[in-house]
Amino acid sequence: MRSGYLSVIIPSSLTSESKDQRIKTYKVGQIARAASIFRVDRIIIYRDPQYDDSKFIDLVLRYAETPQYLRKHLFPLMDELKYAGVIPPLRTPHHPLRSSPEVGEYREGVVVGSDEGAWVDIGTEGPVPLRADRTVRKGERVTVRIFSRRPLQVELWDRRQIPQYWGYQTEVAGALGETLKAQSLVIATSRKGNIVDERLLAQLQKAMKESVSVAFGSPTRGIEDILHEEGCTLSDLADYLINTIPDQGTATVRTEEAVFATLSILNLVR
Amino acid sequence: MRSGYLSVIIPSSLTSESKDQRIKTYKVGQIARAASIFRVDRIIIYRDPQYDDSKFIDLVLRYAETPQYLRKHLFPLMDELKYAGVIPPLRTPHHPLRSSPEVGEYREGVVVGSDEGAWVDIGTEGPVPLRADRTVRKGERVTVRIFSRRPLQVELWDRRQIPQYWGYQTEVAGALGETLKAQSLVIATSRKGNIVDERLLAQLQKAMKESVSVAFGSPTRGIEDILHEEGCTLSDLADYLINTIPDQGTATVRTEEAVFATLSILNLVR
Repeated sequence: MRSGYLSVIIPSSLTSESKDQRIKTYKVGQIARAASIFRVDRIIIYRDPQYDDSKFIDLVLRYAETPQYLRKHLFPLMDELKYAGVIPPLRTPHHPLRSSPEVGEYREGVVVGSDEGAWVDIGTEGPVPLRADRTVRKGERVTVRIFSRRPLQVELWDRRQIPQYWGYQTEVAGALGETLKAQSLVIATSRKGNIVDERLLAQLQKAMKESVSVAFGSPTRGIEDILHEEGCTLSDLADYLINTIPDQGTATVRTEEAVFATLSILNLVR
Repeated sequence: MRSGYLSVIIPSSLTSESKDQRIKTYKVGQIARAASIFRVDRIIIYRDPQYDDSKFIDLVLRYAETPQYLRKHLFPLMDELKYAGVIPPLRTPHHPLRSSPEVGEYREGVVVGSDEGAWVDIGTEGPVPLRADRTVRKGERVTVRIFSRRPLQVELWDRRQIPQYWGYQTEVAGALGETLKAQSLVIATSRKGNIVDERLLAQLQKAMKESVSVAFGSPTRGIEDILHEEGCTLSDLADYLINTIPDQGTATVRTEEAVFATLSILNLVR
């Protein structure tokens, strides 16, 4: 059985340390990479009142997650994506390199026309007819399955039924406290958390079978401090408080660094 | 007792995927950050015949590791460091923020003059007299310990005797095979390696008490392929072959991503 649904919760201040738009873009791209490498299902951006770059972060995350051939449909030319070229390709199964799909394969597509039924662009030479059991609208992003190769025909598919990793969704949320409240099981990361040892790892292994949300502090403040300012208490909101970088050699660990370090460890017990 | 000496072995092609000099610089800066967070003692750059950027990688790594106040002495203005501003600060104990040290503290310094004995710049207002039991030369980087505050006086110190993490050294090596041969204990990382589980983790814990070198493949090829081309066999050269990213969601994992993921896991048993 596939393990539980995995969300990561990151601050809207992820990009606050750099003034360079190119580096900001690259940094968000790294979150996209980390999420894809470790099969994260959802990235939630909470509002850090000190620096709210959630719109940009969300935009770049969605852009990175979109297969290259669909970007022209879904993202108009805009200044915020000026440096999108520095985003590393995700190389996930839903970003296929070759353009000629086999029967049974899945593709991401965009509905491009609806003359005599719906048509989708799935990265092949022309639009492909879509068999759908519901109404689709032009410009909608859809997941499809190839059921005929000659002629190429596809049917609408539920992405949750796909056995491979199929990208992440994004969500712009409000304050950290209310964001954590909305999760079913929360693993919060902090320098002051419990050091991950064999025993804790075994507990986390059980937790990872459920829907789990892993929360990270901001580049300047830990989760405790952010929640304190909101009048919340961490122990009421988190099921686990873990330190995944015992004995760190640096005074601070950046959000994207903590994301890589933490997901790497949790991946061992997922 | 402090754990064993830790080296990481990275390819000269680390920067090969990006044409953007700023991103190349940032990427090397991330290796510097990973090394500092996880208390790496040495970074060895081996020669990947496909792309040899070892001079640049070594330069940026050394620059990042040098306390800010010493950089002007040790790094002349050069084009390769044009984007050094994007390198994240290491925030290690040997990069102190305040400039007024206490007796017993350690500092990095550069020998600046030798009129009537040696003087060092340790980031305080002016040069400080140095007590040394050996000859030092102007421009030499030295580690010192403060033994008098008023007047400020320092003595030469052996960095290996400092109980905190005190930065990494760098080394530009030759081919991967000969580099691995020169190590006492090698942990090689590969997608084809043994998945890190509880049992393997316990073995690695024992290994980490010794001097350990952790080797990484290039952005385009795994360690096995690089060694094969050199006419070497991995099993002759590595004590452990581990996969630290089981069930990866992406077709490839970049060197800097593998470094973060692997050091994070090894840090749990160090």
